[in-house]
Amino acid sequence: MMKSVKHIACALSAAFCIHGVAHAQDNVEAAIQAAKNYHGQYGAEIVNMFTDLLAIPNDALDEENIRLNAQTIATMFEERGFAMELLEHDGAPPLIYGSLETPGAQRTIAIYVHYDGQPTEDVKWSHSPFEPVLYSRSMTDGGEVIPFPVPGDTINPDWRIYARSASDDKAPIPALLSAIDALRGEDIPFTSNIKLIFDGEEERGSPNLDEYLDTYSEKFSDIDLWLFCDGPGHQSGQPQLVFGVRGVTGLEVTVYGPDRGLHSGHYGNWAPGPGWRLTSLLASMKDSEGDVLIDDFYSSSIAITDADRAAIAAAPSVDDDLRETFGLARSESNNAPLGERILQPALNLQGLKSAEVGDKSRNVIPPSATAAIGLRLVKGNDPSDMLDLVEAHIRAQGYHIVREDPDRKTRLKYPLIAKVTRGTGYPAVKSQMDDDRVAPLINALKTVAGDELVLTPMLGGSLPLYMFEEASPAPIVVLPIANFDNNQHAPDENIRLGNLFYGIEAYASMLTMEE
Amino acid sequence: MMKSVKHIACALSAAFCIHGVAHAQDNVEAAIQAAKNYHGQYGAEIVNMFTDLLAIPNDALDEENIRLNAQTIATMFEERGFAMELLEHDGAPPLIYGSLETPGAQRTIAIYVHYDGQPTEDVKWSHSPFEPVLYSRSMTDGGEVIPFPVPGDTINPDWRIYARSASDDKAPIPALLSAIDALRGEDIPFTSNIKLIFDGEEERGSPNLDEYLDTYSEKFSDIDLWLFCDGPGHQSGQPQLVFGVRGVTGLEVTVYGPDRGLHSGHYGNWAPGPGWRLTSLLASMKDSEGDVLIDDFYSSSIAITDADRAAIAAAPSVDDDLRETFGLARSESNNAPLGERILQPALNLQGLKSAEVGDKSRNVIPPSATAAIGLRLVKGNDPSDMLDLVEAHIRAQGYHIVREDPDRKTRLKYPLIAKVTRGTGYPAVKSQMDDDRVAPLINALKTVAGDELVLTPMLGGSLPLYMFEEASPAPIVVLPIANFDNNQHAPDENIRLGNLFYGIEAYASMLTMEE
Repeated sequence: MMKSVKHIACALSAAFCIHGVAHAQDNVEAAIQAAKNYHGQYGAEIVNMFTDLLAIPNDALDEENIRLNAQTIATMFEERGFAMELLEHDGAPPLIYGSLETPGAQRTIAIYVHYDGQPTEDVKWSHSPFEPVLYSRSMTDGGEVIPFPVPGDTINPDWRIYARSASDDKAPIPALLSAIDALRGEDIPFTSNIKLIFDGEEERGSPNLDEYLDTYSEKFSDIDLWLFCDGPGHQSGQPQLVFGVRGVTGLEVTVYGPDRGLHSGHYGNWAPGPGWRLTSLLASMKDSEGDVLIDDFYSSSIAITDADRAAIAAAPSVDDDLRETFGLARSESNNAPLGERILQPALNLQGLKSAEVGDKSRNVIPPSATAAIGLRLVKGNDPSDMLDLVEAHIRAQGYHIVREDPDRKTRLKYPLIAKVTRGTGYPAVKSQMDDDRVAPLINALKTVAGDELVLTPMLGGSLPLYMFEEASPAPIVVLPIANFDNNQHAPDENIRLGNLFYGIEAYASMLTMEE
Repeated sequence: MMKSVKHIACALSAAFCIHGVAHAQDNVEAAIQAAKNYHGQYGAEIVNMFTDLLAIPNDALDEENIRLNAQTIATMFEERGFAMELLEHDGAPPLIYGSLETPGAQRTIAIYVHYDGQPTEDVKWSHSPFEPVLYSRSMTDGGEVIPFPVPGDTINPDWRIYARSASDDKAPIPALLSAIDALRGEDIPFTSNIKLIFDGEEERGSPNLDEYLDTYSEKFSDIDLWLFCDGPGHQSGQPQLVFGVRGVTGLEVTVYGPDRGLHSGHYGNWAPGPGWRLTSLLASMKDSEGDVLIDDFYSSSIAITDADRAAIAAAPSVDDDLRETFGLARSESNNAPLGERILQPALNLQGLKSAEVGDKSRNVIPPSATAAIGLRLVKGNDPSDMLDLVEAHIRAQGYHIVREDPDRKTRLKYPLIAKVTRGTGYPAVKSQMDDDRVAPLINALKTVAGDELVLTPMLGGSLPLYMFEEASPAPIVVLPIANFDNNQHAPDENIRLGNLFYGIEAYASMLTMEE
């Protein structure tokens, strides 16, 4: 359906390419108006083009489908004049690479998107995650299923598409395509060379991205601004620009009781219960306010600057609304602001398992208990060093650490045994908020959003941005478009169409930003 | 196959019914020899009769099969002259009731067995739990699958049958049938009237037993000695007689975080993690030595008597062997003896669950975390009162207790919310070790086992014996026959054939015991 919408491949007019701030903002303003005209006229076509893309399952481990995603997306940009390549590495999902030269370009920008999605747990979704459904508003606000629009229909910005990756992170793709088409439809010129870099395994930790950047380093050595299109907007509902992302790592800890399930009557009070051991070990890691008690956990973090604090203070306070939305009477650290909490590393307990609860529970002392722990890191925290600190803490509680389930000899030697399985991960990234190379983007986005634009020192989520700093030292900023209540990483992920349309306007302004 | 073995219905000779201890022991000794002769000659038939019974699935909730078990068992005793009835109540599994009058009986004994088994979790068993398999010895000692014996084969006492309920608690059925046949085959008279009471839902907590005893109270009002055939032998491998059993109850506790799964990056360090809350709450309940920290948890327990301590001291110390067997470097309370630990109430953590661990783990702060907690009780502990103490402890940690998942209003009002689901349960029972009515049984069993017989003040496991105290006030003793390493309540449950044959001898001595 999108193919019927007018788009012009490469024949860009330079008519508006006049330097100077006043004219620059004219150009940007025209671009934004073009974007508004475009999604006003072609809203149904944009929605339907997007749902076609969402219908292709995109777990990075689903080799056939992830490749179909890559080919589909590459074709769409190729039709718009981009030189496209599917870069390959070792049977990993392809890295979609694209480039577009702009006559008289002021800079070269790189746009990162990831086209894979979080694995789905079908049983908990209200609908199948790869059969997109349109709702009149958020499900939790009483939204109802409505038919998809047909060309000419007016789109209500509160409508939501429910599907895996509707927000995280396929949404930037239709938004960018639409921005390009909108500008070309009104002959508004771009001001930057553009490079596309679309990751196919971000939700699996981007295990091959480093190698990709290494192997194809010549493609990425001339970037002046890295633009990452991922993550949700500010929780106030206002648009935001983000200057850093947390790093991530994790580990799994299993502790042991008897080598087999033992009758809890005959041995309860005598055989050590692994659940008690695990809960005691975990309880020693965090206090009731959420502060981590592991030695030196906060030591390596860079200091929070005055600029950070000023930006946090200027941002709308959303904490009360968030607590209300999520049904929380209190948040951690005595209701400390979210913006501040995100500037510190986090220790998250993502999962607990020992035997069974509910109907399947048995009167047995189980042989083991396991915790899945995730860490979120800030600038200065080395992922491996942080895992070392957690391990040192476990040792300090008297545990002997093993890497495989212990054999009999080990069991009989050490009263307390913990199997620690270390995950991979990567460090945080943080750019300066006052870098000259970022100013044109801030100006362009302020033309879209005015004072509503929130400048965020740090996003809570993680992206593998550290690799890009090495590939081409340049500021890295994140421009999210998704609604914050998008159920990212959870069942019933969704995108609010008003946010998708904001994305078209934001990208139109970005494509035309001026020094 | 068993049907071809000679058994005489009711025509008992009174030839050996001469009172006096010397003659009494002659009678018992003859009975034991008859039992030995019998299992020596008909070992294969006993094994095969037993495996036929084990092949009938016996989860109490499997209505068709549990009833088939009841009918099969009733028929076997009917064929041996017992007046059998399947007592009924409200669609519960039938209570198998049987009675046999003995001319000149010295007393009336009641024999309790339960014919249902723990629910099976097929996936973890080495073989299907209801397709019995014979092993040359314990699987964990390198036993191998061997063919079932044919009549005339010599049975090795180390052979084991693997199947659900092989020990808990179908084993007493073939043992008792064989003891009856052995005595009748050699015209050795019984000395007691016998009543049978076979429970069909013990592993589901015997929810209807109380009603059964009430409805049919006239059948159970004249008992002089309650004999409970359940549980494993002493961990030393020696036979035992037990004078008490722990009571049991339990509860499930769920604590809450955000009302939906939240991205651990965006909200980690801000949204309270239910796993941390649960681990902290549980850690406050028990210290690292296994002692319970809940106020008054130990207050209502009856004092441990000198007789208890003497019996524990006289019993073989099995703690070192048990730790070795179960791969434990240390047991709770600084290696305090198992016999002593069992005389105190226990708090067991049977299961933990929050989101997922392993491959299914996600970077999400889960909405809830749940613990399944079991309590084992000693004489003096009221089950409901004990649960009240646990709830009071939870409240003392700042939790608001609810009975259903909290609604939004409740969530926003209380920072800490715990859903507590209270289980049912029953109190402990403990008989005096020097009661005159028990002396004949102790003497009889000593004739079988000599000084090896262990007198145990308290068994760790639970049986609903408290109801019988009310139905007919009389000593209650437990005569277990299963090997202690039978994997009771766990996969790969088994019975050692030497233990089954001990059961035949023990029951033969019990059927002929004399004042």
